[in-house]
Amino acid sequence: MIEKKALTKKDKDISRWYLDVIFLAGLADYAPVKGCMIIKPYGYKIWERIQSIFDRWIKEDGVENAYFPVFIPYTLLEKEKTHVKGFSPELAIVTVGGGEELETPLVVRPTSETIMYASFARWLKSYKDLPLKINQWCNVVRWEKRTYPFLRTTEFLWQEGHTVHLTEEEAEEMALKALGWYKKLYEEYFAIKVFAGIKSEAEKFAGAKRTYTIELFIENGKALQGATSHNLGQNFAKAFEIQILNEKNQLVYPWQTSWGLSTRSIGGLILSHGDNNGLVLPPKIAPIQVVILPVFDNSPSSELKDYVAKIEKILASLNIRFKTDWRTDKTLGWKRNDWEIKGVPLRVEVGSKELRNDSVLLAFRHSLEKKLVKLSEFEKNLEKFLEEIQTKLFEKSREKVSQFVVEVKSKGELVEAIESKRLVKAFWCGSPTCEAKLKAETKATSRVLELEEMEKKEKAKCAFCGKSASQRWIIGRSY
Amino acid sequence: MIEKKALTKKDKDISRWYLDVIFLAGLADYAPVKGCMIIKPYGYKIWERIQSIFDRWIKEDGVENAYFPVFIPYTLLEKEKTHVKGFSPELAIVTVGGGEELETPLVVRPTSETIMYASFARWLKSYKDLPLKINQWCNVVRWEKRTYPFLRTTEFLWQEGHTVHLTEEEAEEMALKALGWYKKLYEEYFAIKVFAGIKSEAEKFAGAKRTYTIELFIENGKALQGATSHNLGQNFAKAFEIQILNEKNQLVYPWQTSWGLSTRSIGGLILSHGDNNGLVLPPKIAPIQVVILPVFDNSPSSELKDYVAKIEKILASLNIRFKTDWRTDKTLGWKRNDWEIKGVPLRVEVGSKELRNDSVLLAFRHSLEKKLVKLSEFEKNLEKFLEEIQTKLFEKSREKVSQFVVEVKSKGELVEAIESKRLVKAFWCGSPTCEAKLKAETKATSRVLELEEMEKKEKAKCAFCGKSASQRWIIGRSY
Repeated sequence: MIEKKALTKKDKDISRWYLDVIFLAGLADYAPVKGCMIIKPYGYKIWERIQSIFDRWIKEDGVENAYFPVFIPYTLLEKEKTHVKGFSPELAIVTVGGGEELETPLVVRPTSETIMYASFARWLKSYKDLPLKINQWCNVVRWEKRTYPFLRTTEFLWQEGHTVHLTEEEAEEMALKALGWYKKLYEEYFAIKVFAGIKSEAEKFAGAKRTYTIELFIENGKALQGATSHNLGQNFAKAFEIQILNEKNQLVYPWQTSWGLSTRSIGGLILSHGDNNGLVLPPKIAPIQVVILPVFDNSPSSELKDYVAKIEKILASLNIRFKTDWRTDKTLGWKRNDWEIKGVPLRVEVGSKELRNDSVLLAFRHSLEKKLVKLSEFEKNLEKFLEEIQTKLFEKSREKVSQFVVEVKSKGELVEAIESKRLVKAFWCGSPTCEAKLKAETKATSRVLELEEMEKKEKAKCAFCGKSASQRWIIGRSY
Repeated sequence: MIEKKALTKKDKDISRWYLDVIFLAGLADYAPVKGCMIIKPYGYKIWERIQSIFDRWIKEDGVENAYFPVFIPYTLLEKEKTHVKGFSPELAIVTVGGGEELETPLVVRPTSETIMYASFARWLKSYKDLPLKINQWCNVVRWEKRTYPFLRTTEFLWQEGHTVHLTEEEAEEMALKALGWYKKLYEEYFAIKVFAGIKSEAEKFAGAKRTYTIELFIENGKALQGATSHNLGQNFAKAFEIQILNEKNQLVYPWQTSWGLSTRSIGGLILSHGDNNGLVLPPKIAPIQVVILPVFDNSPSSELKDYVAKIEKILASLNIRFKTDWRTDKTLGWKRNDWEIKGVPLRVEVGSKELRNDSVLLAFRHSLEKKLVKLSEFEKNLEKFLEEIQTKLFEKSREKVSQFVVEVKSKGELVEAIESKRLVKAFWCGSPTCEAKLKAETKATSRVLELEEMEKKEKAKCAFCGKSASQRWIIGRSY
């Protein structure tokens, strides 16, 4: 039974609320294997929406999908030293295959750089073969001690893009382009204000030259890494001996990028907009944008059925993703709660009253407001209503961020802000030593240096260690 | 370099031809891990076509996509005894996770009945929750000693549908519906004549009550299993204690089905239509339906560019999947070979001659015929041309099957036909003992009892053992 009272209040305990929403909305379920999750149909439909949007963008850019093996020989993973060091504590390893002990243990891919680049080395001969732009939609496994549905699971789904370029400039441009896609997905589709920028030396991807990141602010004061894009430099090219002939017929190492977005993004979506009544989905990403709720006593009259059919026809003609709830074994109140918990942006209620007046009762999920409108007005303005919801959700997200991110000048202010569950913006030196101390003392780390800040070169002091610093970073605890 | 001479003749050595085509057409590549393959972009695009077609059909039927973990605790797999017995020789087992030996080893899913049904048991309470129809697009792993790209790889991609029903009739209907989808996909989209029917006791899925199958005839005289659909009866429901309340409030075991189609189907597609010049793809499944090949000496004239743009506009307006080959670093002959090997149904060549005459030179891949047509005729008839190619490929496939499947009456005839690389149709008793002997003596097994034959009850004798038999089976060696 889905009942509102079973749902923890978000403002009381966001962690319990998060789990309640996931299970009550039918997004996911625990699996019979530790650390893994089952993505149920309603949650998977969100992933399918993400896939269809992102897949279109990358294909328009000439990226092609492919599929590489889930197993990586351990010997291959070892080739890039920083990379294997970063991933080795998190590996799931197959040691038995077909009833026999394997000579070379196989790692279940935590990411596919090594297995892909071993092949790229064979495929690429000349600058004419570049750029190579490959993407893969797949499952990956990183052994996690503490797991949390969507946000941190031993197995998760993602896309991983991998490109190879002749020049450093092109690779850098590609890494930033991917970051731009992620920002657009989060801001325009998820309606979430994000920070887009670069990671510190200590926080960058194992094996990357530079890691770009999308960071989300969560109301419990933590930052959530929403997607990353890596300029890999020539690190992997050298480790995997990828060499190509350039225009002057010289053998050179090409420049590479990799970039990924995972089902974790759904966790960010849940956390960002949800309220005490459950999930709130922005219209552009919602699997169901409009739910029609016919109101009747025992069984619907034929007039009501015809009227609903008329509304359905309107929705279909506008290409709206909708569903009609004809269930008879649930009360009206139960069904309203159910669609609220599921976060459907717009509920359209129609009973005998609406039927008589040629109108529909609209219930807006994001504001919980209700509005009676004529059917003709509904038809005329539906798209506008959905756009307005989308816009308002983004504005709300931006306001929340600006409230909760505070600018600090001193170590005292920084520590206090972190303790009171804020993200801080502060001059910071960027040094791994300073970052290690910061983490030890506050449990916080640098999250991101925003793109707009990267160019700045001010004369200032690190808010934490006092050494010279020239740029303002976003610092905070992370998921 | 892709050159026709590098391609083994199909009629000389179909196995080598198959590998040559896969590598020369860029469908797949060997992976740096034994038994696995890399599906390259051109091959993966065929899989994406299959996904988009099949996914639409199942969604129209109310099937919902979801995602279950890749890992299955060994203890869970053991619950259905026949099932674990069938799969245990083929398992890849994770014994180390996060640097530690696991207490319960995890199996990398060979199929997902056990991991899904453990959850179904928790989810399903009443007949109102039925039917449950879940599908999953994912990777699965079955450890294979001898592997072959697409046809038999340690890891492969597939869809697996899993449904639960209140009655046996509904489950049977669902199993047959899925079989119908597979038949439609193979015959109407792949243009391959198939045999659709039931498997023998000895050949059915481990744990199923009944297994339906799609079998393809291959020119080397072997049968290829193209997809299967299982009526699972109540076997898994009992093993996993899935019990639901029926309309009379009684606890009953529901009836289940599972059905799957994998990347192996691409192997069937390659083998069925390919010829001595390479791959031949039917227009309905081809990632590229039309390739435009501008013919020029050093660089194309602006007139030629405009003319090609005009053709591209026509193709776009007709929603044709097309590509224009402007490469300047390859000869015209090389490019023609390349597109032939890649099996693109229709090549449109345009040079100064065609430009002058407002015409295009069409090269049909399936017949290797060329035809000069006016541009207006091209625009008017293009869709018809593609439909005709599709129809002709299916007719050719049907003819081939009727030539190579021979009806036999005695054991002598049966053995001789199998030895001369034929599939046979013969009265057969269906007994596992007879099938074991058949396999030992001829390396052949029963492949399928076609749906049309299932109803028949003739009085006859088994062509192999002489005991009574009432139906004609398709028997042969299999991939």
